[in-house]
Amino acid sequence: MAPADPKQPAPHYAEAGVDIGANDRLIPRFKELARETERPEVLGGVGPFSGLFDLSGYDNPVLVASTDGVGTKVLLARILGRLDTVGQDLVNHCVNDILTAGARPLFFLDYLANSGLSEDEKVAIVRGVATACRETGTALLGGETADMPDLYRPGDFDLAGTIVGVVDKNARVDLDAISPGDVLLGLPSSGLHTNGYSLVRRVFGLSGADPEREAAVLNDPRPELGESLGDALLRTHLSYWPLLEPVLPRIKGIAHITGGGVPGNLARILPPRCGAVVRRAAWPEPPVFALIQRAGEISDEEMVHVFNVGLGLIIAVDSADAAPLREQIPELVEIGLITDAPEGEPVRVEHARP
Amino acid sequence: MAPADPKQPAPHYAEAGVDIGANDRLIPRFKELARETERPEVLGGVGPFSGLFDLSGYDNPVLVASTDGVGTKVLLARILGRLDTVGQDLVNHCVNDILTAGARPLFFLDYLANSGLSEDEKVAIVRGVATACRETGTALLGGETADMPDLYRPGDFDLAGTIVGVVDKNARVDLDAISPGDVLLGLPSSGLHTNGYSLVRRVFGLSGADPEREAAVLNDPRPELGESLGDALLRTHLSYWPLLEPVLPRIKGIAHITGGGVPGNLARILPPRCGAVVRRAAWPEPPVFALIQRAGEISDEEMVHVFNVGLGLIIAVDSADAAPLREQIPELVEIGLITDAPEGEPVRVEHARP
Repeated sequence: MAPADPKQPAPHYAEAGVDIGANDRLIPRFKELARETERPEVLGGVGPFSGLFDLSGYDNPVLVASTDGVGTKVLLARILGRLDTVGQDLVNHCVNDILTAGARPLFFLDYLANSGLSEDEKVAIVRGVATACRETGTALLGGETADMPDLYRPGDFDLAGTIVGVVDKNARVDLDAISPGDVLLGLPSSGLHTNGYSLVRRVFGLSGADPEREAAVLNDPRPELGESLGDALLRTHLSYWPLLEPVLPRIKGIAHITGGGVPGNLARILPPRCGAVVRRAAWPEPPVFALIQRAGEISDEEMVHVFNVGLGLIIAVDSADAAPLREQIPELVEIGLITDAPEGEPVRVEHARP
Repeated sequence: MAPADPKQPAPHYAEAGVDIGANDRLIPRFKELARETERPEVLGGVGPFSGLFDLSGYDNPVLVASTDGVGTKVLLARILGRLDTVGQDLVNHCVNDILTAGARPLFFLDYLANSGLSEDEKVAIVRGVATACRETGTALLGGETADMPDLYRPGDFDLAGTIVGVVDKNARVDLDAISPGDVLLGLPSSGLHTNGYSLVRRVFGLSGADPEREAAVLNDPRPELGESLGDALLRTHLSYWPLLEPVLPRIKGIAHITGGGVPGNLARILPPRCGAVVRRAAWPEPPVFALIQRAGEISDEEMVHVFNVGLGLIIAVDSADAAPLREQIPELVEIGLITDAPEGEPVRVEHARP
């Protein structure tokens, strides 16, 4: 690749795997994507060294921030050459993380590290970020693209990002309000979202070392899934902000089901005096989980600690609110109850099938 | 590694290179580090899914945010087993990025991706992050540790992070104020800071593929440096916030010298009607740059586009302010002038030595 400007030659640097000219050419393409997500509070778009966001007009703003990655789902995206969905996974994951505090997303910044991706591949990845930002009303305020030869294999990349949202100090989701007798409602996931990929890749032999063979495994149609394994595994992480925003004042607690699964994440929102019981039979599981469990000979116990097994988010509500909320949001499924704190583990998952 | 709790077994997952129990054990250690950086605005420390920061009390807050990594400096840190400085590089880099808008740092979130690092190694890396946070008054509000087998070689890691700061809407550094005749003052860097490592590693054969041989190259004393190459290359990125905070109202523009060097970064702050001239002989260069240039047979032109060659930050000030500022901050060096916009490249670097 020739440098963009003959007055700024960087022959050694290009040889070393970093093409400053190519990155200069990327900036206008990233700015274009950021413009699609712009909100009136963004001052001057992606600035020279940082992004600026006007927060005047809030009375008691509490900023809510979270950083996350998409885990080794990026390796599957690379093997299949489908680069425009992992950015959606990332943003939606982060939106859900701050939704647990009741926060509205404001802006997002991404970090894309790679070795040897083309300009178009980088743009495809950031386009996924911008798509989910637009869908959730989040401004793409900035980001960093790092060319890291020797750290990543050629064609490999990692993707992470940070979201900042806002909630009024008096409107925060207050976990102290949770009490025994409250009802747990779940929202279905689309699949694995962004957790459990290292285990799945081990089960199906997808290390990225032999991309051609691994792509064949992923593209093979699987009758029990009604689609290929690759399609099932790359389904994007759902964002629950649009669904829950209108009912936030009636929610006592929100658990985003990520690493640690239902028991691990539900435990994170329980006050010390409370426990929880959920019935796994209460919600439908996408068939990909049964396939993984069978192929990997994985116990029920491990399945629910590693995967979301069909639930993307769980909310705790007063029992009197459960029925009206389910009427208003038909996607909500009643999955269990808040109990007194039990001896031992705070969350019990009943695995028995009906 | 045994899982932390026998009721939460994850044997397959541990085999697959992800030990959920080990990460559970890390959380209290990270919380301890975060507590050292706490500010009164932090609500509840590192929360279950996100960090909360109270921003009430500002009249016209503009948030200023930036995401960055430390590039392949992480590979040198790994080869030398010195893990506690790259976190300082990262935070200080980000603090300088938002300082360019005049912003005071508020909080930081880190992203640590790795394969096979021990708990102590992860803690050492995050301790570096916390150290620089404390030194710059930044709260460590959260972070993500991702175990990514197959994406990284065992022992490899990547480190990135996001800073959020605040500036009053009417106190932003206003680049439009820059005009011909303004004086450019520079602040010395400690070394390469976080740019140019892929080229340096190529020059000295430091790919990370043969850690033992490469550690020997890095540990060899270099008389012309007065220290080893490794010591010179791992010097931490300086933060200029404490130095410049008291004089921000008198600064018209701030360029953080990162990838693209003095000409690339100075160009980013120039209004269209302006150019700039800097004399390379005006500031002292740490001897590591001459060593790199000689060993790699790199042209002057490429050196100043890839490396900071001794300047970490450049400010533009009214000519009447130059002398008083240099008196107040003795580290400031007069390095050049703002000119009318020239034909061609906006920034001219005069390489002639005295």
